[in-house]
Amino acid sequence: MSGEFDFSVKARDGKARTGAITTPRGIVRTPAFMPVGTAATVKAMFPQDVAAAGADIILGNTYHLMLRPGAERVAKLGGLHAFMHWDKPILTDSGGYQVMSLAKLRRITDQGVTFQSHLDGATVELTPERAVEVQCLLGSDIQMVLDECTPYPATREAAKTSLDLSMRWAERSKKAFAELSAPGQALFGIVQGSVYPDLRDESARALMEIGFPGYAVGGLAVGEGQAAMFDMVEVTTAILPEDKPRYLMGVGTPQDMLGAIARGIDMFDCVMPTRSGRHGQAFTWGGRVNLRNACFAEDTRPLDPESACPAAQYERAYLHHLVKSGEMLGSMLLSYANVQFYQELMAGARDAIADGNFATFAQDVCERYAASDPD
Amino acid sequence: MSGEFDFSVKARDGKARTGAITTPRGIVRTPAFMPVGTAATVKAMFPQDVAAAGADIILGNTYHLMLRPGAERVAKLGGLHAFMHWDKPILTDSGGYQVMSLAKLRRITDQGVTFQSHLDGATVELTPERAVEVQCLLGSDIQMVLDECTPYPATREAAKTSLDLSMRWAERSKKAFAELSAPGQALFGIVQGSVYPDLRDESARALMEIGFPGYAVGGLAVGEGQAAMFDMVEVTTAILPEDKPRYLMGVGTPQDMLGAIARGIDMFDCVMPTRSGRHGQAFTWGGRVNLRNACFAEDTRPLDPESACPAAQYERAYLHHLVKSGEMLGSMLLSYANVQFYQELMAGARDAIADGNFATFAQDVCERYAASDPD
Repeated sequence: MSGEFDFSVKARDGKARTGAITTPRGIVRTPAFMPVGTAATVKAMFPQDVAAAGADIILGNTYHLMLRPGAERVAKLGGLHAFMHWDKPILTDSGGYQVMSLAKLRRITDQGVTFQSHLDGATVELTPERAVEVQCLLGSDIQMVLDECTPYPATREAAKTSLDLSMRWAERSKKAFAELSAPGQALFGIVQGSVYPDLRDESARALMEIGFPGYAVGGLAVGEGQAAMFDMVEVTTAILPEDKPRYLMGVGTPQDMLGAIARGIDMFDCVMPTRSGRHGQAFTWGGRVNLRNACFAEDTRPLDPESACPAAQYERAYLHHLVKSGEMLGSMLLSYANVQFYQELMAGARDAIADGNFATFAQDVCERYAASDPD
Repeated sequence: MSGEFDFSVKARDGKARTGAITTPRGIVRTPAFMPVGTAATVKAMFPQDVAAAGADIILGNTYHLMLRPGAERVAKLGGLHAFMHWDKPILTDSGGYQVMSLAKLRRITDQGVTFQSHLDGATVELTPERAVEVQCLLGSDIQMVLDECTPYPATREAAKTSLDLSMRWAERSKKAFAELSAPGQALFGIVQGSVYPDLRDESARALMEIGFPGYAVGGLAVGEGQAAMFDMVEVTTAILPEDKPRYLMGVGTPQDMLGAIARGIDMFDCVMPTRSGRHGQAFTWGGRVNLRNACFAEDTRPLDPESACPAAQYERAYLHHLVKSGEMLGSMLLSYANVQFYQELMAGARDAIADGNFATFAQDVCERYAASDPD
């Protein structure tokens, strides 16, 4: 591994961009979708299949990994890449989001957050400095500053207080990263501000003042709805620098991602393809397919003839049987098919942007999905 | 598919034999281990990995498949091979064993067995004729007669009564098979008789009188212990014809299989490699490995460097983490590694028999396993 972290935009179509993030562990084509590998595994998938599905980068969860097997242990075992048999880039979150959603007895101060592990009740402290240290121990290529993911809904006052804390933590994170990181690793700032355009503006400018090689948009897809999310993305990307990658955290459905790409977003992560796969839901080029539905019991069509994924070539009747029977192979095949669909969707978006017809591409996919979406 | 069912012994070493069963769907090298694909899937494995692990044949469970998705439905969907993406031979059991172990409210008469499905409580009748019909609908290459797996322990009288019923059913099975089967398919008889040598003798001779292209030894590995099992195998194989394959049902551990091969058995099936894999237990060339054990938390050795299985190359520390975290990938990797170990064990046995050193081979493996077996 050598080289610098870099980002270049190769083509634009409206506000949508396609380009490449260069890291010491390889190139990430953007727009990019990062499958989530919470506990050092993209659930129900062999690592080589995650790569075969087209993923250039995966996401690891700092909160989970610091609790089990532990960051120091992962470092001792050669780092997260070697540990989980994934040699391409890894982005890690800071752990802050999961502390809020999973841990018990949280206490936030200016110093950081103290919580009890959801696994064994142990008291753990996570500070901006420790979050960076953990991510460096894991060896992640793209790291995130510790922030407070402002709960939704939040009053303007609460959102402002939360935002100010996150901006102070961002500054401390950058300092810690300068001391601890390895060459080529990058630390991204995270824009907060809830659904208040002026706070989003303020947050983006505060982070740019500190200066990061990439910027995430956080605190969205938390219940505000797609319209408000798109508004906040639009406000934020209008301010963020053109020459840095922009990452919309925790998003989302195909329609969410296409709408965000149209507003200038370059990166996504979401548990949706894998979690849905484990629950019998497929994402296909024909829209969503709920394999639990009895209408598939004798349906000999492949899951998705438009996909190149080997798992998508299995017949719907067989997948229905596996899902109904609670067989692991059902989760394995649908996770693989969904992760590859998400990658094919990103590849389609990249090509469409390069060809100057992204709007048509996005509209076509959205129409297919509108027809199949659950009520 | 064309051709006849055939069996030929290529080499002998003591009572151990190595050879090949020819079926229209391919050759089964013997001694052979058949991974169990209960519900049209070898649990937690892609079908291509079952083949890559070296399996020439798998076993399907008639009881499970007739209840879900249903034999008529499987036939409508093109048969079990097409349904589950497995084009090599499949052996199916008759369903009798699972009726006894899983179904509710069983009632056995001379006609057959009536039971309530463990899935939905529906009343189902299984007769020797229906068991053959179901197996023909599934399209299985090697079918088994419906029998009563005599419970253990059984008095001599009870074992004799049960045996007589099974022999009457064997005869009816053969008649039904003659009417319903496709060219190249085979129906095996099943020797019963509990732990009574004279009853085993009587059962084997009764089946040979009816005449089958292969013979299974049933009603063992049900609590009688290894010594009694080996005694019954020895009594039975001494009577069975030399030129027909012999299948010891539901067995077993590496030591059980090696001891049975030494006594003239050619085929095995067992859920052990896959079930153990889902519970964090590995079978390796170094013996059993319980990945739940904390001693593996920082063990960077591959699971089994002596195995050619890709899954066995994963480090023990990572497998320990996956198992402790309840991650599906742990089940996937350990099932794959275990199934391949069982296949490598059979390949080793075949080579050793051909080379005339089977006893040495078996002793070496048994010593490795004796040292690692759980108390």
